[in-house]
Amino acid sequence: MADFWVTEAMNGFGMTVQVKREICKRQSKFQKIELYETGKLGKLLLLDGIIQLTNFDEFAYHEMLANLPFYAHQNPPRRALVIGGGDGGVLRELGKHPELETIDLCEIDEEVIRVAREFLPEIACGFDDPRVAVHIADGSEFIREKNAFYDIIIVDSTDPGGPGTPLFGEEFYRNMKRALRPGGVIATQAESPYLLPEIVARLHRAARANFRSVGYASILVPTYPTGTIGACVAGDIDDVTRPTRPVSPELAAKLRYYNSEIHSAAFQNPNFVRELLR
Amino acid sequence: MADFWVTEAMNGFGMTVQVKREICKRQSKFQKIELYETGKLGKLLLLDGIIQLTNFDEFAYHEMLANLPFYAHQNPPRRALVIGGGDGGVLRELGKHPELETIDLCEIDEEVIRVAREFLPEIACGFDDPRVAVHIADGSEFIREKNAFYDIIIVDSTDPGGPGTPLFGEEFYRNMKRALRPGGVIATQAESPYLLPEIVARLHRAARANFRSVGYASILVPTYPTGTIGACVAGDIDDVTRPTRPVSPELAAKLRYYNSEIHSAAFQNPNFVRELLR
Repeated sequence: MADFWVTEAMNGFGMTVQVKREICKRQSKFQKIELYETGKLGKLLLLDGIIQLTNFDEFAYHEMLANLPFYAHQNPPRRALVIGGGDGGVLRELGKHPELETIDLCEIDEEVIRVAREFLPEIACGFDDPRVAVHIADGSEFIREKNAFYDIIIVDSTDPGGPGTPLFGEEFYRNMKRALRPGGVIATQAESPYLLPEIVARLHRAARANFRSVGYASILVPTYPTGTIGACVAGDIDDVTRPTRPVSPELAAKLRYYNSEIHSAAFQNPNFVRELLR
Repeated sequence: MADFWVTEAMNGFGMTVQVKREICKRQSKFQKIELYETGKLGKLLLLDGIIQLTNFDEFAYHEMLANLPFYAHQNPPRRALVIGGGDGGVLRELGKHPELETIDLCEIDEEVIRVAREFLPEIACGFDDPRVAVHIADGSEFIREKNAFYDIIIVDSTDPGGPGTPLFGEEFYRNMKRALRPGGVIATQAESPYLLPEIVARLHRAARANFRSVGYASILVPTYPTGTIGACVAGDIDDVTRPTRPVSPELAAKLRYYNSEIHSAAFQNPNFVRELLR
């Protein structure tokens, strides 16, 4: 079969990825799950036609989403919750921290986990960690029953519009705050300021209404449209933009993106993004 | 006419931009020049099929390429040289600095300047500045005859392969060094580490062989493939990554991307880029 191109287009521009063959295509209760082999970029996962990851650059997003809240926290976190993240990439990065005792993951669509475990073992290996407990549920409901339990909460969601829509509302941020122990820190997938400026602004407002320190960090992920995705990091701490602890040399050797300097630098935004966040 | 998509693809992935109509298509002595109206992203300029700019995001690239060397310099620069940059965008940004006395531009392809002045006046307005002198010549030859003359040199080139190829060689960096006055700083278009890692590494080596302080800065430009483009900034000064002077409030109001904090932050690189630059 000849190569073809998979394109995710929105607001007049898009990303296009050359693809060699289909690996798997399934319709779950919630969304269409597609996995392709691209050749140069490894495997490509789409949910409802939206690029979720490629093997080529998933490290950038997963390392940052896991480590920004981990190192912003003033003490080594013991309990982590991941909402979404059914591919296992955030789990894999959290699993590199021996300090964590509990790693809960709440994913609405168990079919995503099944596809990842079957076809993306290099990412889904995060599920093999004995500290991980998987909950198949709507994250916006799961969080309601938690009270002062987690040290970090990471929201690795799809875009608003699909099943992840409630994860972009102010109530969800209020509930995350309640689910955190004192000093807790959240990090949420916060879109691109070039592509979806109004969502970036809305998330930032929801976080600011609930947390003392809030930052918007940019992560360079070439296969997302515009090549950038943001993380909204927030907590009732002095400054989420500063890592409070160094990365151990053993861990640093395993990281391809995150380091202490890029932690702070990622929160420095161009003027047009600063205005958006005002 | 129905909309169509213009795609720049390389190494398995690419950027694609929705286009409403062709504005102009010309074959110059050096390259194919194409200009389209996109609708959402404004006008789109291609040289030999490679995206050079859109109205939507050119500010990011032009502001950073002009201001990184301008503010890294320890004194307000008086004399600037732009090599390439026939669209006028870097000139427009340099023109915002009253301190500059001389702004030379050396472009190999005068047809690019003609197209920009005719169809992209919002960018080519940079040519209207009375301090600007235009030289139609090969930048790699033009620079050979200059000795301790410029305070900053900015290389706004196409990718290697086209007429810009000599601008990626070590000899060119040696000649730029000679063309600078003491304390002078250069900034060159330095590609994306995700897309062309070997060129990023090569440019960095060429700069390090000639200058005491060298940095690689990332700029978020969604319509370039991978969404990121780098600037190699170098000089015989203490630290190109630090701005030495604040941006005046009058100028800050005119800038949509550059600020003092993003100057430093842009030079903080992910681990995989650090390795590339070693």
